[in-house]
Amino acid sequence: MNPDIQRERENATFNTDLLTYILDGGQEKTRRRREIESLVISDADFQQEDANFLSRSERYDAAVRKSAQMILKLREYGISDPEEIYAYKNIVQGQNNEALGLHFVMFLPTLRSQGDAEQRKKWLPLAESFKALGTYAQTEMGHGTFIRGLETTATYDPATQEFVMNSPTISSIKWWPGGLGKTSNHAIVLAQLYTKGICHGLHAFIVPIRSMSTHEPLPGIEVGDIGPKFGFDEVDNGYLKMDNVRIPRMNMLMKYAKVERDGTYQKPPSAKLTYGTMVFIRSMIVGESSRALSKACTIAIRYSSVRHQSELRPGEPEPQILDYQTQQYKLFPLLATAYAFKFVGQYMTETYHRITGDINQGDFSELPELHALSAGLKAFTTWVANGGIEVCRMSCGGHGYSRCSSLPDIYVTFTPTCTYEGENTVMMLQTARYLVKSYRQASTGQQLSGIVSYLNEAHQRLQAQPVSSRPTVVNISDLASLVEAYKLRAAKLVEVAAKSLQGELQKSRSPEDAWNNSSIDLVRASDAHCHYVVVKLFAAKLGEISDTGVHSALSTLALLYALHGVAQNSGDFLQAGLLTVPQLSSVSQRLKDILAQVRTNAVALVDAFDYRDEMLNSVLGRYDGNIYEHMFEWARKSPLNRTEVHESYHKYLKPLQSKL
Amino acid sequence: MNPDIQRERENATFNTDLLTYILDGGQEKTRRRREIESLVISDADFQQEDANFLSRSERYDAAVRKSAQMILKLREYGISDPEEIYAYKNIVQGQNNEALGLHFVMFLPTLRSQGDAEQRKKWLPLAESFKALGTYAQTEMGHGTFIRGLETTATYDPATQEFVMNSPTISSIKWWPGGLGKTSNHAIVLAQLYTKGICHGLHAFIVPIRSMSTHEPLPGIEVGDIGPKFGFDEVDNGYLKMDNVRIPRMNMLMKYAKVERDGTYQKPPSAKLTYGTMVFIRSMIVGESSRALSKACTIAIRYSSVRHQSELRPGEPEPQILDYQTQQYKLFPLLATAYAFKFVGQYMTETYHRITGDINQGDFSELPELHALSAGLKAFTTWVANGGIEVCRMSCGGHGYSRCSSLPDIYVTFTPTCTYEGENTVMMLQTARYLVKSYRQASTGQQLSGIVSYLNEAHQRLQAQPVSSRPTVVNISDLASLVEAYKLRAAKLVEVAAKSLQGELQKSRSPEDAWNNSSIDLVRASDAHCHYVVVKLFAAKLGEISDTGVHSALSTLALLYALHGVAQNSGDFLQAGLLTVPQLSSVSQRLKDILAQVRTNAVALVDAFDYRDEMLNSVLGRYDGNIYEHMFEWARKSPLNRTEVHESYHKYLKPLQSKL
Repeated sequence: MNPDIQRERENATFNTDLLTYILDGGQEKTRRRREIESLVISDADFQQEDANFLSRSERYDAAVRKSAQMILKLREYGISDPEEIYAYKNIVQGQNNEALGLHFVMFLPTLRSQGDAEQRKKWLPLAESFKALGTYAQTEMGHGTFIRGLETTATYDPATQEFVMNSPTISSIKWWPGGLGKTSNHAIVLAQLYTKGICHGLHAFIVPIRSMSTHEPLPGIEVGDIGPKFGFDEVDNGYLKMDNVRIPRMNMLMKYAKVERDGTYQKPPSAKLTYGTMVFIRSMIVGESSRALSKACTIAIRYSSVRHQSELRPGEPEPQILDYQTQQYKLFPLLATAYAFKFVGQYMTETYHRITGDINQGDFSELPELHALSAGLKAFTTWVANGGIEVCRMSCGGHGYSRCSSLPDIYVTFTPTCTYEGENTVMMLQTARYLVKSYRQASTGQQLSGIVSYLNEAHQRLQAQPVSSRPTVVNISDLASLVEAYKLRAAKLVEVAAKSLQGELQKSRSPEDAWNNSSIDLVRASDAHCHYVVVKLFAAKLGEISDTGVHSALSTLALLYALHGVAQNSGDFLQAGLLTVPQLSSVSQRLKDILAQVRTNAVALVDAFDYRDEMLNSVLGRYDGNIYEHMFEWARKSPLNRTEVHESYHKYLKPLQSKL
Repeated sequence: MNPDIQRERENATFNTDLLTYILDGGQEKTRRRREIESLVISDADFQQEDANFLSRSERYDAAVRKSAQMILKLREYGISDPEEIYAYKNIVQGQNNEALGLHFVMFLPTLRSQGDAEQRKKWLPLAESFKALGTYAQTEMGHGTFIRGLETTATYDPATQEFVMNSPTISSIKWWPGGLGKTSNHAIVLAQLYTKGICHGLHAFIVPIRSMSTHEPLPGIEVGDIGPKFGFDEVDNGYLKMDNVRIPRMNMLMKYAKVERDGTYQKPPSAKLTYGTMVFIRSMIVGESSRALSKACTIAIRYSSVRHQSELRPGEPEPQILDYQTQQYKLFPLLATAYAFKFVGQYMTETYHRITGDINQGDFSELPELHALSAGLKAFTTWVANGGIEVCRMSCGGHGYSRCSSLPDIYVTFTPTCTYEGENTVMMLQTARYLVKSYRQASTGQQLSGIVSYLNEAHQRLQAQPVSSRPTVVNISDLASLVEAYKLRAAKLVEVAAKSLQGELQKSRSPEDAWNNSSIDLVRASDAHCHYVVVKLFAAKLGEISDTGVHSALSTLALLYALHGVAQNSGDFLQAGLLTVPQLSSVSQRLKDILAQVRTNAVALVDAFDYRDEMLNSVLGRYDGNIYEHMFEWARKSPLNRTEVHESYHKYLKPLQSKL
């Protein structure tokens, strides 16, 4: 154990395990998670060469092998609880992705939720035994966000009782689905349904794309890998072009909408039924934001505790770089953010389950709010985590740029969350639509409930007095007062956006143009709303924590999170009259004091995330802090070192020398 | 040609070529650059497979081949002007790096500048004929920023008149130098010189590391590649461990310091002589910031002009995504930034050459200012460009994540500039040191000159009246007034930092602790200073432009740059009393108007950067806008598509299916 990092742990003022239990949701859950992780770590079948040393084809190969092994082992060990499966997969994959991911998260669930009884009976056994390996093909080359614009067609032919599937243009080629390129032999394809000459919009079809015996592409199918990406090397995101591919009528998923034998179309009863999955996935992504950021913080903070550089005091040894205020100012607000997002993720999951219960009893009342919240928080948390991971990487200097740090991998694996499952700006605007609607309801005297209820009082408050004469509300040392300030900031920015929209409408533009011309303000309003929700939930979480050591450490982080946000957005708080200019200097001073407090517990706070070395796969983030010897060991395995003299010397350099 | 992008060009209000001439520094320079680029593009020897489809070893191989070819062709064509060589190399390399880069930018220049006459006579012919292939080995595994901490030793042995080179610890292993792993047979090694038992600090030594006939590592040398990184795949950044490696006395570079035969050490006359190179490289990096950001903007803006998505008005065709205000708000401020940094880069290069002239005449007076400015601007521009490239990438949705966009490549190639040649935070603090020193001089009545002269008047001004009663100075539609506001903001933040430092010192801390405890404020002050310089130089550049069309387009961009910075940092401007709360709303409104103005010229403004398709290597950024067909063509070449059925199917999936 490196003595620096050992001393950090000895100096911590709280019990790390107790905090880990809170993060896991209880001591028993921590125990079981650790047990599952140890199963994998001690399993010789999962030992393998570092993926960084493999070609893309080898990485894909290794991922398929691991997926196949996982399936067999999970059955062997009888692990079936979703949380436990999640823990198992996480430790197997480390920073990488699952080759069969879409089969599990989209193909199977869609068969279950959208297939009718007969379809489920036919397809589920095939999918559960992996005879049918599937993916979900929605996005096209030319169409992502706006799914109504998809061009793929499914035209019913009553003569043969088949659908004829077509990709009528280049831009209609299915593009991006994971596992589509090489792995899957089936795809659930979203296509515009035509029957009796009429288009009935998007429906889902099960399309066999490769032979179940030879795995060769079927006639009329052109399928392949879309080529190398920023990350996800081990995943075969694919393309699919269909040319008059005929599938049986019963390959349209018919639980809701139906096409009868003669081609008669039956509408689905409600369009809102698929809402839930979307909300669930976005809630999961909030959790992923915390996860990715907390991994990056673990690596950067551990490294900063063992890395020594420059001098603080002449003649003394080089200090740990964690002692530099600028380093603390980079990392500690992100550490606080990782905790904040963790608690937001927990809240989202709980709320989702609670509301799902309501929905099953026919009560849809809370769904719009959760839908709006999950959209905004997905965008808010992924953007912040995305930038934060890179700050962590760069805070590790040159070594953060090496693949041995794992930070490049964490970034490229995480950054697509800003785009997929709802492009972030589009998500922010969805939330804004809900906020503006709520604001208008409050303006007309309607009483709002739920998380937007602040628009009731805020509306009165903001109307009552001009901004400049309003008394300052915030006590910068009091978290409750800061939550209040975030709330009023959000209310102010929702008001600004609503008024901008109003102003644009009065210029007699169309509602759509007015919306577009206010969209900068609308995104800001959503951002402020989400920021308020995060601060509020972090503060609320503190109330649940009984251990005084842990409570104190987390309270400091919550204050740091809130004050850092005030400093970063000081213009908003000044503008809304929630803060005075002299207070701004106090905020700066207070932040510095808090950084010094967090310094004591920084390593313990990342230890509490409890990532095994095998999961981080980072030389810089090693628990024992022994970075340099392992960096050297890692580098010597680099493929370029397999020969002392690279062939390019003989091919180009020696001839060059002889020519000059 | 895609009709959308053609229409964009037709609607532009200025002549693109005229702007290109301004960027190149004259019509003749543009002509010559284009001529050189065409030479390369029509050269069959430089046609090659997309590097994205190659393994790392193949990428390195291809880079060595191209470097060797370049050397021969430059001689064949008689291209020797540095600017022309730069243009030639840029087009050959596209987004990639040169295998022999360090030989040219460090090994040869160091031999020339630090070798004495005898050494130059021996080594330059070897290096210029590439018999000696060299690199520059400074950074060690445990030591980057703080070079005094380097551990490598060179101990003089008078008995044999040799230096004995050693890497005494793991952390002393040389780490990171480009070309060190596999390419170079020599390295200039920075080591602590010991002679007669005394350490004389860092000196440079020429160390043969591989045989000049077989290229095998020499005895006592352990050398290799440090392993895969975020980018720079084609470069063999290397490690070097030396165990009692003996080199002749004359392998220490002796132009300044010397070690005589008996081991007597002679000090160099001045330590400031190597200052110049550092300033020059940092100035070049400012130019690279503009270059990388302008490439990213070209790709994102062209793509946004041909990509259609969602709906603005019900029933109408999907609009170009460039019509969305949120998209404009992401991209246009970055476009303005790319122009701003271009002009800052031009200014830095001109100033460097002017001051170098002065230095050659013995006048060092302007060097400290340029040194401080180049440090801060290097950090300021690389951070902004670094974040901006990712905004561009994500603004292209999913397709930005594909390697076919080239945006991942631009990012990973650029991001190390935030770290190398001076870690950015350290750079900001260097500039802050100069600012605080200047502020103190102004406080004591000294009259400052040069770019910090604003601290003279600002000091009086800020002292004279309390912030709240000062009249608002800024006219948000007037660039000159905005430059003034940026100046006063900088003055205010320098003052805040200086006072923080003062306050910490009064708490009777050591000067070093006081510095560390003020470093957040110090970085903010540097940032504001650099921001002021950039706005000022952009405004100044407008005065040189005579064509009214170009002048108008660039004036709009300059106003956008300045106002966007005010909006992003509104707290500072409010705090300093330079802006009122009602003005902040006007800033928002004005920004929206400007976005609409820039919309008209956006494609023409990126066209003016004049990047050939071969240089961008981006399907999304194609000049002709025909993205989808080329994306499909590109994907089909992906290595995973070489076989229809990947071997992993037979190895893992088929067996899995048979087991369940």
